[in-house]
Amino acid sequence: MTSAFTFELRATDGKARTGVITTPRGKIRTPAFMPVGTAATVKAMLPESVAATGADIILGNTYHLMLRPTAERIARLGGLHKFMNWHGPILTDSGGFQVMSLAALRKLTEEGVTFSSHIDGSKHVLTPERSMEIQRLLGSDIVMCFDECPALPAPDEEVARAMRLSMRWAERSKAAFGDRPGHALFGIQQGGVNRELREESAEALKVIGFDGYAIGGLAVGEGQEAMFGVLDYAPQMLPADKPRYLMGVGKPDDIVGAVQRGVDMMDCVLPTRSGRTGQAWTRRGQVNIKNARHADDPRPLDEDCTCPACRNYSRAYLHHVFRAGEMISGMLLTWHNLHYYQELMQGLRDAIAEGRLDAFVSEFHRLRAEGDIEPI
Amino acid sequence: MTSAFTFELRATDGKARTGVITTPRGKIRTPAFMPVGTAATVKAMLPESVAATGADIILGNTYHLMLRPTAERIARLGGLHKFMNWHGPILTDSGGFQVMSLAALRKLTEEGVTFSSHIDGSKHVLTPERSMEIQRLLGSDIVMCFDECPALPAPDEEVARAMRLSMRWAERSKAAFGDRPGHALFGIQQGGVNRELREESAEALKVIGFDGYAIGGLAVGEGQEAMFGVLDYAPQMLPADKPRYLMGVGKPDDIVGAVQRGVDMMDCVLPTRSGRTGQAWTRRGQVNIKNARHADDPRPLDEDCTCPACRNYSRAYLHHVFRAGEMISGMLLTWHNLHYYQELMQGLRDAIAEGRLDAFVSEFHRLRAEGDIEPI
Ligand SMILES: [Zn+2]
Ligand SMILES: [Zn+2]
Repeated sequence: MTSAFTFELRATDGKARTGVITTPRGKIRTPAFMPVGTAATVKAMLPESVAATGADIILGNTYHLMLRPTAERIARLGGLHKFMNWHGPILTDSGGFQVMSLAALRKLTEEGVTFSSHIDGSKHVLTPERSMEIQRLLGSDIVMCFDECPALPAPDEEVARAMRLSMRWAERSKAAFGDRPGHALFGIQQGGVNRELREESAEALKVIGFDGYAIGGLAVGEGQEAMFGVLDYAPQMLPADKPRYLMGVGKPDDIVGAVQRGVDMMDCVLPTRSGRTGQAWTRRGQVNIKNARHADDPRPLDEDCTCPACRNYSRAYLHHVFRAGEMISGMLLTWHNLHYYQELMQGLRDAIAEGRLDAFVSEFHRLRAEGDIEPI
Repeated sequence: MTSAFTFELRATDGKARTGVITTPRGKIRTPAFMPVGTAATVKAMLPESVAATGADIILGNTYHLMLRPTAERIARLGGLHKFMNWHGPILTDSGGFQVMSLAALRKLTEEGVTFSSHIDGSKHVLTPERSMEIQRLLGSDIVMCFDECPALPAPDEEVARAMRLSMRWAERSKAAFGDRPGHALFGIQQGGVNRELREESAEALKVIGFDGYAIGGLAVGEGQEAMFGVLDYAPQMLPADKPRYLMGVGKPDDIVGAVQRGVDMMDCVLPTRSGRTGQAWTRRGQVNIKNARHADDPRPLDEDCTCPACRNYSRAYLHHVFRAGEMISGMLLTWHNLHYYQELMQGLRDAIAEGRLDAFVSEFHRLRAEGDIEPI
C-alpha cells in the first residue's frame, strides 16, 4: 500500500481524454464508469460479476456505511474491500451530498452538519475531519472532500455561499487527510451553473492541491442542456494532468456528452436501479421489460450483447420473471445494464485512442434514434 | 430425446440405496435432492450457480407455470429448459397439491379440479389429462401423476377416498401420458399414515406400472415421528428397481432419515426459502444470521464450507446485508443452503456406496447436537 497513486494521460481527441489511473489496488482505465455499491454491495450483483462487466472501480457511500454497519465496525473487520469482497479500487463519497438528500433534522454550521439517521433516528455529526476519518476507516482508495451541494435551481448568492463553505471545508479535508501514500484525495468544484463561481472554486482547489478534481453540484435537477453548458468550460478549469470526476452522472447520453467535454470518471445508480425496476439500457435506447409486447418475444434484449441476460434468456423470460417478482429479474437486468455501461466506456476509450470519437458518437446517437427493435 | 429413462441401483446399506438415473438430459445421482424452481427460476440463483452447488435435477411447479406465463407460451418459446436456461433434467409436479394449497374457489369432482388463480382470479380446470398435457408442453423429463393430497390429520375415510380417487386419476394419467421415450411418468402413493391404505395404494400403482414411484401425502403437518413411521414401511411397498421419490421433504434431518429408510429422491423449498429469510443450514444446525451476535463476527458461516458465501464473506457481512435488506443476502444464503444440501447428499451417497452409512449418520447428528460455534 505504499506505491503511488498516478494518472497517465494516453491520448486525447478534441477535449476528450483517455488514460490510466494506477493505484496499489489496480488500474482504472479512463474514461471510467463506477458502479455504485452504496451499502457494501452493488445491488443484485456479486462482486465477481461486477468485475466481469469490466468495472475497474466501484463507489461506496460514506453516509450509508457510517450509519450501518458503521465505519469503525468495517475497520475492525479489515476494511471495506475485505468486508464486501471487492479487491479493486474503491472511491467513497464524503457523505455530504447524501446527508442533505436523505437525513432528517439537518443542521448546517461552519463546523459541519448535524443530522438524524434515516434508519433509526440516531443523531450524528459529519465534519470534514470526521468524513476523512470515516473514509480512512473504510480503507477507501479515492477519498472525496467533504462539501455542501445545493439543489438547483438556487439563487447565485446561495450557490456562492455553499461553494465558499465547501472550499473552506476542502482545505480542512486536505489537512485532515494528511499524507497517505497510495491513497488519493479529490477536491470538488462547486458553483452551480455560474461560470464565475466555477472559476473561483477551481482556483481555490488548485491552490490547496489535490490528486484529482471532481465536478460537483451537477445532475441535481438542472437538466442536460444546462449541465452540458457547464461542462463546456468547467473541466478545462481543472488541472489537465489530474483525473476529472463528474459526480452522479448519468444516462448513457449524459456520459457520452461528458466524455466529449473532457471528463474522466463518472458514477451513477441508474444502471443498477433501473435493473431492479424492469428498465434496460441498450445501444438502441431504453427497453421497458414490463411491457406486454415482450411476453412472447423469443429474442434477446440485445442480440449483440454478450452479457448473461442476453446470451441465455429471451425477452419473454425477462418479462415473465419481472412480472412474477422474481429476484433473477433484478439480477439479470442489473448485470445487463452494467455490462452495457462498461461496453460503452470501452467504446469511448477505444474511439479516443484511435482519434475517431466523432464517428463513434454519431453512431451512438444514430442507433438510439432508431429505437428498440420492432415487436414480433 | 429417444434414449431411455433408466435407473441403476449401485449399492445398498441397510434399506438405504445409491444409484444413478439416466435421462437424455443427463444423469441424476441418487439419493438426490431437487432444488425447487417454482416459477421457472430457483429463487435468488442463476441456473449455472444451482448446477455449481451439485444439483443434477430441479423441480418446476405446474400450478404456477400454467397460470404464468402459461404452458402454451413456454412451449412456443421452446420448452421450460430453454426458457429458464436449465439444461439438466427437470421434474414437474402435477399441480394437484398446489391447487389445494394456493388456489381459491376450488371444486373437486371425479373429473378433476376447477379453481380460480391466486394471481388474477381467472378460472381454470386441472384434470389428469390436462396435467399430462401441461407437463408435456413444459417439456418435463419426469412427469408426476395428477393426484389429490389431503392435509393431515384427516379421518381414515377421507384419506381412503382421496387415495382411491388418486389411483383412478393415476390410471387416467398413465393413459394420457402415452408413450414418450426418454420421459418418465411417476405414480404417487397416497394413504396418509395408514399402513393398509398405503399398501392398497402401492398395489394399485404397481398394477398400472410406472417409471418411478413417489411417496405422497407426507410432510403435510403430521410431524417427523409420524412421517418416519410411514417411511419405516412405505418405500419397501414400492418396486425396488425403480426410483422412490419422497415429495416435499425436507429439513436436513428429515432427508437423512428418509434416505436411511430407502428414499432416492426428495425436493423442498426450505433451503431456498430459508436463504431469503436469513436462515442458514449448516453441519452444526440452523444459524439465524439476523441475530446481533453475528454483527462483529469475522468468521465464515461454516469454515469448512466451500460455497461463495463461506469462502468470501464473514458472518458480520452476511448479517449486515440481511439487515440492510440487500438482495445479495438472499443470493449468498440461498447458495450456501443449496450447497450444504448437495454436500449432504454427496456425503450420503458416498457413505452408502462404502457401507458406512450408520457412522455417517452418527456424525451428522453429533455435529448438529453440538450446535453453532460459540459467539466471539
Ligand atoms: Zn446484455
Ligand atoms: Zn457455505
